[in-house]
Amino acid sequence: MNSFGKRLILTTFGESHGKAIGCILDGVPAGIKIDEKFIQSQLDRRKPGKSKLETARKEDDKVEILSGVFDGLSTGTPIAMIIFNTNQKSRDYDNIKDLFRPGHADFTYYHKYGLRDYRGGGRSSARETAARVAAGAVAMLILKELGVEISAGIYEVDGIKANHIDFEYAKISKLNALDKDVEKLQEEAILQAKNNHDSVGGVVWTRAKGVPIGLGEPMYYKLDAVLADAMMSINAAKAVEIGEGTNVSHLKGSQNNDAITPQGFKTNHSGGMLGGISNGDEILIKTYFKPTPSIFQTQESIDRFNNPKQYKLQGRHDPCVAIRGSIVTEAMMALVLADMCLLNMGRKIEHLKAIYNTK
Amino acid sequence: MNSFGKRLILTTFGESHGKAIGCILDGVPAGIKIDEKFIQSQLDRRKPGKSKLETARKEDDKVEILSGVFDGLSTGTPIAMIIFNTNQKSRDYDNIKDLFRPGHADFTYYHKYGLRDYRGGGRSSARETAARVAAGAVAMLILKELGVEISAGIYEVDGIKANHIDFEYAKISKLNALDKDVEKLQEEAILQAKNNHDSVGGVVWTRAKGVPIGLGEPMYYKLDAVLADAMMSINAAKAVEIGEGTNVSHLKGSQNNDAITPQGFKTNHSGGMLGGISNGDEILIKTYFKPTPSIFQTQESIDRFNNPKQYKLQGRHDPCVAIRGSIVTEAMMALVLADMCLLNMGRKIEHLKAIYNTK
Amino acid sequence: MNSFGKRLILTTFGESHGKAIGCILDGVPAGIKIDEKFIQSQLDRRKPGKSKLETARKEDDKVEILSGVFDGLSTGTPIAMIIFNTNQKSRDYDNIKDLFRPGHADFTYYHKYGLRDYRGGGRSSARETAARVAAGAVAMLILKELGVEISAGIYEVDGIKANHIDFEYAKISKLNALDKDVEKLQEEAILQAKNNHDSVGGVVWTRAKGVPIGLGEPMYYKLDAVLADAMMSINAAKAVEIGEGTNVSHLKGSQNNDAITPQGFKTNHSGGMLGGISNGDEILIKTYFKPTPSIFQTQESIDRFNNPKQYKLQGRHDPCVAIRGSIVTEAMMALVLADMCLLNMGRKIEHLKAIYNTK
Amino acid sequence: MNSFGKRLILTTFGESHGKAIGCILDGVPAGIKIDEKFIQSQLDRRKPGKSKLETARKEDDKVEILSGVFDGLSTGTPIAMIIFNTNQKSRDYDNIKDLFRPGHADFTYYHKYGLRDYRGGGRSSARETAARVAAGAVAMLILKELGVEISAGIYEVDGIKANHIDFEYAKISKLNALDKDVEKLQEEAILQAKNNHDSVGGVVWTRAKGVPIGLGEPMYYKLDAVLADAMMSINAAKAVEIGEGTNVSHLKGSQNNDAITPQGFKTNHSGGMLGGISNGDEILIKTYFKPTPSIFQTQESIDRFNNPKQYKLQGRHDPCVAIRGSIVTEAMMALVLADMCLLNMGRKIEHLKAIYNTK
Repeated sequence: MNSFGKRLILTTFGESHGKAIGCILDGVPAGIKIDEKFIQSQLDRRKPGKSKLETARKEDDKVEILSGVFDGLSTGTPIAMIIFNTNQKSRDYDNIKDLFRPGHADFTYYHKYGLRDYRGGGRSSARETAARVAAGAVAMLILKELGVEISAGIYEVDGIKANHIDFEYAKISKLNALDKDVEKLQEEAILQAKNNHDSVGGVVWTRAKGVPIGLGEPMYYKLDAVLADAMMSINAAKAVEIGEGTNVSHLKGSQNNDAITPQGFKTNHSGGMLGGISNGDEILIKTYFKPTPSIFQTQESIDRFNNPKQYKLQGRHDPCVAIRGSIVTEAMMALVLADMCLLNMGRKIEHLKAIYNTK
Repeated sequence: MNSFGKRLILTTFGESHGKAIGCILDGVPAGIKIDEKFIQSQLDRRKPGKSKLETARKEDDKVEILSGVFDGLSTGTPIAMIIFNTNQKSRDYDNIKDLFRPGHADFTYYHKYGLRDYRGGGRSSARETAARVAAGAVAMLILKELGVEISAGIYEVDGIKANHIDFEYAKISKLNALDKDVEKLQEEAILQAKNNHDSVGGVVWTRAKGVPIGLGEPMYYKLDAVLADAMMSINAAKAVEIGEGTNVSHLKGSQNNDAITPQGFKTNHSGGMLGGISNGDEILIKTYFKPTPSIFQTQESIDRFNNPKQYKLQGRHDPCVAIRGSIVTEAMMALVLADMCLLNMGRKIEHLKAIYNTK
Repeated sequence: MNSFGKRLILTTFGESHGKAIGCILDGVPAGIKIDEKFIQSQLDRRKPGKSKLETARKEDDKVEILSGVFDGLSTGTPIAMIIFNTNQKSRDYDNIKDLFRPGHADFTYYHKYGLRDYRGGGRSSARETAARVAAGAVAMLILKELGVEISAGIYEVDGIKANHIDFEYAKISKLNALDKDVEKLQEEAILQAKNNHDSVGGVVWTRAKGVPIGLGEPMYYKLDAVLADAMMSINAAKAVEIGEGTNVSHLKGSQNNDAITPQGFKTNHSGGMLGGISNGDEILIKTYFKPTPSIFQTQESIDRFNNPKQYKLQGRHDPCVAIRGSIVTEAMMALVLADMCLLNMGRKIEHLKAIYNTK
Repeated sequence: MNSFGKRLILTTFGESHGKAIGCILDGVPAGIKIDEKFIQSQLDRRKPGKSKLETARKEDDKVEILSGVFDGLSTGTPIAMIIFNTNQKSRDYDNIKDLFRPGHADFTYYHKYGLRDYRGGGRSSARETAARVAAGAVAMLILKELGVEISAGIYEVDGIKANHIDFEYAKISKLNALDKDVEKLQEEAILQAKNNHDSVGGVVWTRAKGVPIGLGEPMYYKLDAVLADAMMSINAAKAVEIGEGTNVSHLKGSQNNDAITPQGFKTNHSGGMLGGISNGDEILIKTYFKPTPSIFQTQESIDRFNNPKQYKLQGRHDPCVAIRGSIVTEAMMALVLADMCLLNMGRKIEHLKAIYNTK
């Protein structure tokens, strides 16, 4: 229930304000150079406090590898990684310990489990995604060996959409913006919401290039379905689109079908998949993030004794979770694709003969 | 890979033009009255050829239970169900045996497996969903015991959206339309596309009522993520929204948060989930179906020897797969929720004590 | 819960006296010649009524493939197989419908599920193993491509042990005896027990040759552990030994260690595994089958209302289940090894590069 | 592959000489008092260096809980536990870095993965079982709430068997001996082997009392099969017996069947299971441990370049791994039974109605 994947299996642990968060990544093939600096650099891209567009909370997010690597190479055994929480003592959560914050998981965790770690959202905090990013970085190291590349960026903020898509620009933009030309508008929308003690939603576009044909397992582990699962599992995600996505509702078949030529597909309405299996084209997926539920306005709620409460949040929060969320979508994409690469091996008897050297 | 669920596990088999399709449903609790007529009635709702809005192909879709039921009650052992294919000999597929139809899985299956059953799409045919509907009907029998009710209907066709949502009306509409007032327009759009040898996309809204609080397992088996997986796994699905879905991109936190009162949530922007766990409100999910790739216009493609081919499809196909797809979304919703009900048992030690009668 | 395997996944269904039994085998690589005659021949080896050493009950056990095969080759989609029950109406089970037969699963099924299909043991009948044998035959077809060969035979009956091990002889012996010289004694022991309305236990030795080095996944899917699981899951199995097995309790390390030479292992005390991973030597495993609980003597039991009952079984039963059980051990060995071959792919990054043609 | 269980899922990580070993235990019901002292006390029972019967190597084995516990109670989220390796720098492994030690997993790990962490056996070291013991202790805390109790002890060493079985005595014996009367002989056998630079095998008997009727899932997650898997997965295990075990090969059905009376079973040949489901009687299982492969005599082996090597081990090793292994069998028994208790919930529709308060 805290594990993701079938052959490359991520299991995460940890609460926002516990001792540590971390993960075990099982199924990493042996012989891969594990570049710790690259893993840390991915965490640095996700960590909070890098700009005023993000929460002012600081976390070092220093990751430490505990196992599964020897002489710089993966050994095929589980790679455990740990991130100690360093900033978790600064707040007093007594004022919200009995309260259910609107838009948060407080209500549902309490009713599901009968009790909850209320400090900073506990397990339901987006802090858990740091472990995903660490594991995703390892998945990227696997994919790099196969020539697969993953990118993501902000497509839309508060209704302001990118007109041009530039994944390279997203890498240097502090907003992770895909479109330099609307970046400023998007930034202003975020800051204005922040000044109003409010928050905004956003949309992330995630792309994979160089994906081998044939990834995705029919019937119930299709590439599109698993990516939808992966993206929807990220905190605050509320919708997922593959390729044309919601546009398909007003397209005709003659518009939406991608013609095939000996040189490849003429268009990519499909988002790189047919029948849930990668077709060699770019994988394209959009993830919609809701506005951060943590806002600094008075809200109506109840406590766990079912008393009505007027409630006003204190603290530091991202005014637009999609920004840091975009890094997490890359990690999830990497985890899915690396898993699918492993899972696809053995689909033909030729695969087995190749590995087991049978004539 | 052909199985779905963790505690209530559906495994399906069969090709469009093979001997039979069917499924094994494992994990059904013992002691449930298995109403075969209800199961058949669900299949009848999905079966093709009921109106000119659907393919003219006829399939009886008579389901037979082979195991797991004794004296009318489930025994706790696997329920196998079989549907023999009766209409599969009528066509000659020789003309498409080497061809990759645009928008279909022909290309990807061939490259993944090195060969494919080309008759009617083989395994990738939406015919497989008949097995889901049979299993979904059993899941509904489980949920009925717990007071959970599932409905679905057509929200949008070819850009024409419902203004009013009436799940009761959808049950008697031959279009499964949610809005009686736009049904006629939606129908005309479908028929016009059909006359133009084209097809249209559509959107299905699926709802569950009476869902217990607490369903959904963090971190990687969240209710929203698993529903996204379930819906996206249906043939032709390209996008999935929970609650406000894509709208969240232009909402503020103060608009999107659902205030909580002692009497319940004031609004349901969340679609019945917080932190991926059901909050007791209605589960609401939209699934976007692409226009049927099978159109009767000349299309550009290649054969498996990479020769370019001008191709014009023969045969009978649904001009809007969302209509019959809506029945499948109900089945998937039922399978997910019944699975989640089983999976949630044991989340508190009190659950175990209740079952094992420990004081 | 009715599925076995991780990459090659067997799911079985069916009750002894229901309409049919059968299975879905998922994960079979595409491109394998599916020899239906071979599959049937394996079922024929297991089917009852071949000699007076077995139950007099007759079952044709004709297997029919419903899916997953096209033009004689596996397509990579699930292979469903069905065996209709033909001999299930001949008996009246009313006399045992409320009774718990000693040594049978009647008592536990009833208490677990609250009801049970009492006809011939229902799901708990060894009849389910016919589905395993069908699936195991397909697994053998996979393994044949890789040069792996599986055999089994009777090692011990009623305390009478084989002195010489001859797996070739077992194939032609009606007792599946490994030792021609003690076969007669073993046969007499069985018949004597039968005449005394009693039954005898037996031990089966199962071997795999040509197994690639490296099969088995640490830590919790080791080859020895999974084989133990597989064999113990067969009806009436009560003990499993790998290599020296129980003998290790009185061996010294200096006796039990297998010395390694450039030409291979000098001995095979280990049974072909080190650290739960195949070492290239013969896999050797013994399975102990209890004497058939169905005996024709008066026994003491209770009914489901907890009334004491003196009980005397009617009907036809194997006096020594190990004989037919030996065929089932071959099937389980084949399923485990084929699964492990698939699972092992991807253990090194070189595997992925080979499949995905990355330089 | 490094995970065990279906509802209570243990995932372990770590190498003998890496930074740390540990585990994530997922699926622990919320609301259980997590007694850290009890968990540590179980680790203390397993840790090396307590007597001359064990390796002289010292490990503190201090366990630290990182997550999943709040205010002393389990929260339902993953419980991560870590044990830092403190004694791992004392040896120089350069002399064995290219060598395959007989009876160890060196050979198979190297061939499977293409490289290996050779320090102290790396992942294949029995040091991993410390993580099992920590997790098993948590499983025991779950079981305690249900009245289930687990014990284990040494039955046989070097062919010297217990005549009387006293699980209480085993708890205070430094040999974990079940029979006080043969303990001295068993101890002498161990010390004599040690003095001869050799090692001995042993047999552990493991028992569970108070087990509810109905645990174990047919067909492929039977209680006996999963226990066999669990025990065989422990380092050095080579055989597993349930109840009468290997004795069944020379018993008659009339001897082996357990008669049933209104007051319960008259005998317990079955070891507490029928059809793979617990019958309420004591669960009894024997595990056979091979003599430690680490002996201090000259042995014949090869290095990874396939050169023959005369090899003499240095270092500190248990002369009889069964002693500390007995603690591990308790942990595995606890993990299996707690998992099975969770998994069994939902077998009857009454279970669901009880939890979801449906009339």
